[in-house]
Amino acid sequence: MSMERKQAAVMIVDTAGFGQLLSTDEEATVRRMLRLRAETIVPTVVSHLGQIINFTGDGALMVFDDPSQAFECALSIQTAVNRAEAGIERRRRFRMRIGLDYGSVLATNSGVEGLHVVIASRLEALAPQGGICFSDRIRNTFGDRLNGGCLYGGARRLKHLNDPVEVWFWSDDQAGLRLSRPETLSCKGFRTTKRRRALRGCVGVSAGLCA
Amino acid sequence: MSMERKQAAVMIVDTAGFGQLLSTDEEATVRRMLRLRAETIVPTVVSHLGQIINFTGDGALMVFDDPSQAFECALSIQTAVNRAEAGIERRRRFRMRIGLDYGSVLATNSGVEGLHVVIASRLEALAPQGGICFSDRIRNTFGDRLNGGCLYGGARRLKHLNDPVEVWFWSDDQAGLRLSRPETLSCKGFRTTKRRRALRGCVGVSAGLCA
Repeated sequence: MSMERKQAAVMIVDTAGFGQLLSTDEEATVRRMLRLRAETIVPTVVSHLGQIINFTGDGALMVFDDPSQAFECALSIQTAVNRAEAGIERRRRFRMRIGLDYGSVLATNSGVEGLHVVIASRLEALAPQGGICFSDRIRNTFGDRLNGGCLYGGARRLKHLNDPVEVWFWSDDQAGLRLSRPETLSCKGFRTTKRRRALRGCVGVSAGLCA
Repeated sequence: MSMERKQAAVMIVDTAGFGQLLSTDEEATVRRMLRLRAETIVPTVVSHLGQIINFTGDGALMVFDDPSQAFECALSIQTAVNRAEAGIERRRRFRMRIGLDYGSVLATNSGVEGLHVVIASRLEALAPQGGICFSDRIRNTFGDRLNGGCLYGGARRLKHLNDPVEVWFWSDDQAGLRLSRPETLSCKGFRTTKRRRALRGCVGVSAGLCA
């Protein structure tokens, strides 16, 4: 069983509410998703030198040698999906969530394994629709180069994982980032309502780090 | 894009607490999982005429033409994994959850897609550790042949899916099935505590159908 360690950025992409869309119109939804994969997601990943490990229904696992390329790919996927879906009725549009982490993974002959794959999956679940949730390990590779539009989400305990991860959020819709799924943006120590906690905690903390 | 409909039983396997095990000892956990896949899960699926669509870290997606074979395969996987893991310290043992559904899926050149794949995934999340959660579509293919040890879990609304699914549970540990994760066994209309509701609702309803 061959297995070797390498540094990689791990990206998990998933589609918000895919089950609901399948429930309503299964075959058309599957056809649209396969087309989106082939015409939008695959070319975007390839052009950012990423490797697609597998697709799973409405999601995908990819790896990149370069974490900056991975982040830029995530931004490009969101932009490209929004463009591809612009002609679709709003409630039927695919909206992706993307989770991104960076670290030492175990490359096997069938894919990549290890803790950072699980972390990327947990971060994906925290991401807003149309947005990206990424760890400070991705953030730190940018130094001061990261453009605006990101919010710091604090150190989070992720399900079944021992060590907390410092998380960041990017969204194609800044209002959406602040107002949707506010519970995912809450930061410890704030006693206000969830929504205000999200706004105060995250915008406040992020102001100094992320333009 | 070639796509055709076929009837299939869809099985999703996942490992309880895999992230926790990875957090504690990443490399040994991945090696053990790869070995379990190769030496236990793959041969069990092949011997039940199943097709493995993909593996994802601690999980797998398989399809079977015959729902009875799929259910028997799920039982065999649980037995085989318990046997393979018997020598491992209890808190480090892999314990699988299995979700099973049956229906019309969309077979593509890269795998299977559609609503029943999503349903199997939701059922997997409801399964107890070492157990199986399966729909009435699987149950009904057995007629009166299903052996004891199953509990009826009622009609459940599954996340983001329009139609409720009638679910059944099997566990390698009957006490565990009744007492662990009792909230997953609750049935509508009972006003007692969660645990008693689980016992009364499910054992009661199941008595006439199962065992």
